[in-house]
Amino acid sequence: MTAQEKDYRNKKDLSFINDIKSMAVIGTSKKRNFFFLRNHFATFKGPIYAVNPSISEISDFPSENIYPSVKDIPGEVDFAFITVPKNKILGIIDDCVVKKVKLVSIFTAEFSDAGTKEGIELELELLKRANNVVRFLGPNGMGLFYPKKGIQWRGKFPTEAGNIGFVAQSGGICNIAIYTAKELGFHFSKVFSFGNGTDLDVVDLISFFENDPETNIILCYVEGVKEGRGHDLMSAIARTTKPIALLKGGKSEIGSNAVQTHTASIAGNTKIWKSVFKQNPIMEVNSLEQLLHIAHLIDCYGIKKIENVAVFSISGGYGVVLVDLLQEAGLNIPNFSPEIQKKLDEQFFIRGTSSRNPLDAAAQLFQGDSIRRIIDIALSDKKIDCLVMDLPSYYFDPRYFFTPIENFEEIIIDTLCLGHKYNKPLIPIIQRTHTPEERRRVSKILAAKKVPIFGDPLEVIPLLPIISEYYTKKTQNT
Amino acid sequence: MTAQEKDYRNKKDLSFINDIKSMAVIGTSKKRNFFFLRNHFATFKGPIYAVNPSISEISDFPSENIYPSVKDIPGEVDFAFITVPKNKILGIIDDCVVKKVKLVSIFTAEFSDAGTKEGIELELELLKRANNVVRFLGPNGMGLFYPKKGIQWRGKFPTEAGNIGFVAQSGGICNIAIYTAKELGFHFSKVFSFGNGTDLDVVDLISFFENDPETNIILCYVEGVKEGRGHDLMSAIARTTKPIALLKGGKSEIGSNAVQTHTASIAGNTKIWKSVFKQNPIMEVNSLEQLLHIAHLIDCYGIKKIENVAVFSISGGYGVVLVDLLQEAGLNIPNFSPEIQKKLDEQFFIRGTSSRNPLDAAAQLFQGDSIRRIIDIALSDKKIDCLVMDLPSYYFDPRYFFTPIENFEEIIIDTLCLGHKYNKPLIPIIQRTHTPEERRRVSKILAAKKVPIFGDPLEVIPLLPIISEYYTKKTQNT
Repeated sequence: MTAQEKDYRNKKDLSFINDIKSMAVIGTSKKRNFFFLRNHFATFKGPIYAVNPSISEISDFPSENIYPSVKDIPGEVDFAFITVPKNKILGIIDDCVVKKVKLVSIFTAEFSDAGTKEGIELELELLKRANNVVRFLGPNGMGLFYPKKGIQWRGKFPTEAGNIGFVAQSGGICNIAIYTAKELGFHFSKVFSFGNGTDLDVVDLISFFENDPETNIILCYVEGVKEGRGHDLMSAIARTTKPIALLKGGKSEIGSNAVQTHTASIAGNTKIWKSVFKQNPIMEVNSLEQLLHIAHLIDCYGIKKIENVAVFSISGGYGVVLVDLLQEAGLNIPNFSPEIQKKLDEQFFIRGTSSRNPLDAAAQLFQGDSIRRIIDIALSDKKIDCLVMDLPSYYFDPRYFFTPIENFEEIIIDTLCLGHKYNKPLIPIIQRTHTPEERRRVSKILAAKKVPIFGDPLEVIPLLPIISEYYTKKTQNT
Repeated sequence: MTAQEKDYRNKKDLSFINDIKSMAVIGTSKKRNFFFLRNHFATFKGPIYAVNPSISEISDFPSENIYPSVKDIPGEVDFAFITVPKNKILGIIDDCVVKKVKLVSIFTAEFSDAGTKEGIELELELLKRANNVVRFLGPNGMGLFYPKKGIQWRGKFPTEAGNIGFVAQSGGICNIAIYTAKELGFHFSKVFSFGNGTDLDVVDLISFFENDPETNIILCYVEGVKEGRGHDLMSAIARTTKPIALLKGGKSEIGSNAVQTHTASIAGNTKIWKSVFKQNPIMEVNSLEQLLHIAHLIDCYGIKKIENVAVFSISGGYGVVLVDLLQEAGLNIPNFSPEIQKKLDEQFFIRGTSSRNPLDAAAQLFQGDSIRRIIDIALSDKKIDCLVMDLPSYYFDPRYFFTPIENFEEIIIDTLCLGHKYNKPLIPIIQRTHTPEERRRVSKILAAKKVPIFGDPLEVIPLLPIISEYYTKKTQNT
């Protein structure tokens, strides 16, 4: 690679992605009932074409939008989803070059991922033919999910757009992430599944997100980088001003072997990864669930110092366990400031409660808006960075109470939003008990108000120091 | 205390609990709309009496079962739930002694838990008056949940009886545990909330469970033990032949302070606890959720050595992360035995799959019962102790597939039960995506077949070495 080529590789301009107006699905076939075409057709906001030389009719799809070749399409084609057999891929790429398609997703697999000499060579040829004219995702990837434009490889993907960008090699990981985020109630700006990463890889896509006005938070699932891209990755991460969280697949010995079958990446270079995490401000997590929860937390509350935590519990015992878990994670549960403590003392009037940190509300939960006042006062303490509380989901079932409490749910939801009043994370653990419908209803209401809820303290507590350390690193670096 | 008294204290015979045939709610009042009376009346299988000298009528309750004093009840009273004000408690206990009530739950609070000299003295007086004639739970506790007899302090407690015993000081913890287990689909034999533990405490109740034919697994949430009971606790645990798991509340410094307000126990004696966990075969967990999940796992699969794990994934990327998490937890993901590997190789026929450990099924999931055969073969490997797999919940939504797959759910459920064929834990991670109703439906079907499902690998993976280490300790000790 010449220095010029290398320079180009690191400065791929992908800003055109935000202007995609037209697309084609190339190789769509009857065998799969035009699966990918139908998924995109259902939501894509612009002209969409089907390309297959042996098809002239597709049920519920306009026949005037079916073409034998992408070159025959009269209008422009900004984006193409390619699902042709491997032996046809080079011809199709040539066509895309002629047509000046800006971005293609190559779903077709068995290139370097097959581990064969032939596959590796074909993949290199693909790169050569695309010739920096056509940018491509894949092969062996799902490509692009872009809800704002209605670009989606799967049905029932959420249609709302958020400001979280996600980049992963694995399409399966992306599917799980997209459907889980839909349930948690936060939204992606764009998701890239780049597969073998032959042209566009994690480095390019992190750089793209950094410059993307539609993205505020960057999430990555990475199994490895191609030889020679380690330093580029570190630079890309170092340049990133937006919060970035990363899940590394293949950290363990056997995990790293598995990666080779999966995406033919060099996961094994643990040295690179260790220095990525050590030298750069980046939030490293250990599971896909943690990656999604940390995104949800940051989307709701931003990046904050989280050192001193107030704990509020309904069950004193559960509060004690929360304190243990928080301390184990390196967080403090300090005494409240004297003037705050005084105000809190005045709010507790039922036996079995405790006005100190951890706050134990016990039956006082049912006393109108007294818990709203208590949490408001606790959060107003300058010493306190964050409040963690538990609230079993059965309290949201009015049948649970012998005497129904007026406006109970309204007051509680209002209370759970108090973090935003003080610009401090308020984190409710709403346990997954026998009333999942109630839990889900409340979870949706709260997600819309940018309050994330959790079901298990271990889902969220280990993430708090990660956010806080990122905050510190970022503050020190600037 | 004389040696004889001390001896008696350690040998309280509680076997009568299994023969409770009649009960009374003493102090039931209109103010709370006879809350505890109604909860018990709804399910108790036997005569139930209301005791209150100032009440002669209760709606929807037989007036002939209302008595001014427990002494006036003509028949026997085996169990009483007491909710009188503190200043009336001694008289009530005297009545119970006269009536020879075998067990009482004292819900009334503000004894030693209030931290006052008066409270402490009243509590000691309580013990003296009960005089080893009446055994009691509490004060400041919820007492007994015994689904087989219909003894329940709360409404909507599950009516099915299982074989898991749970003992905790905190009633709030018990409520969350009972309602969470109801959702997870496993069942308790009995739950004791012993509050201040003045008479019956964790030592007595562990000993009871050890001898209880209705209980096979023992769970404890303990904040502390009274002075001088540390050694008794260690002996009780050492004598236990049944699997026992424990969550210690107040392990951290601040957590331990919080315990003092909560139940006036001496949590601070970390030395005792450290030696409890070190010297005895006991499964220690860090959260209530872990305590419940480990119970569910053991209830389904028993106590097993779990060292060599097979991983099966639909998304190769997710499988890689599972491998990383398993290795991080100290587990092996070995190669399959050569003859098993050969059989597995024959089963894989779609590109993008992997027949090695971790198994990556990719799209082969949709090929009839091929995954049933794959998992069956993997589990048949003598080297393999356990199989962990992921299966996003949206696969249980038939609308997810473009072409519906015949008997798909039936085949999958059948497959997920294969652990029982080989007497090895098969652990499905069914992620919490946008189809919670499907997930819940399948979860209920599987729970009935003694297959526990999880939603997040970090919910279950850290528990596997705990079970396995317990197995090893137990095997070494016998």
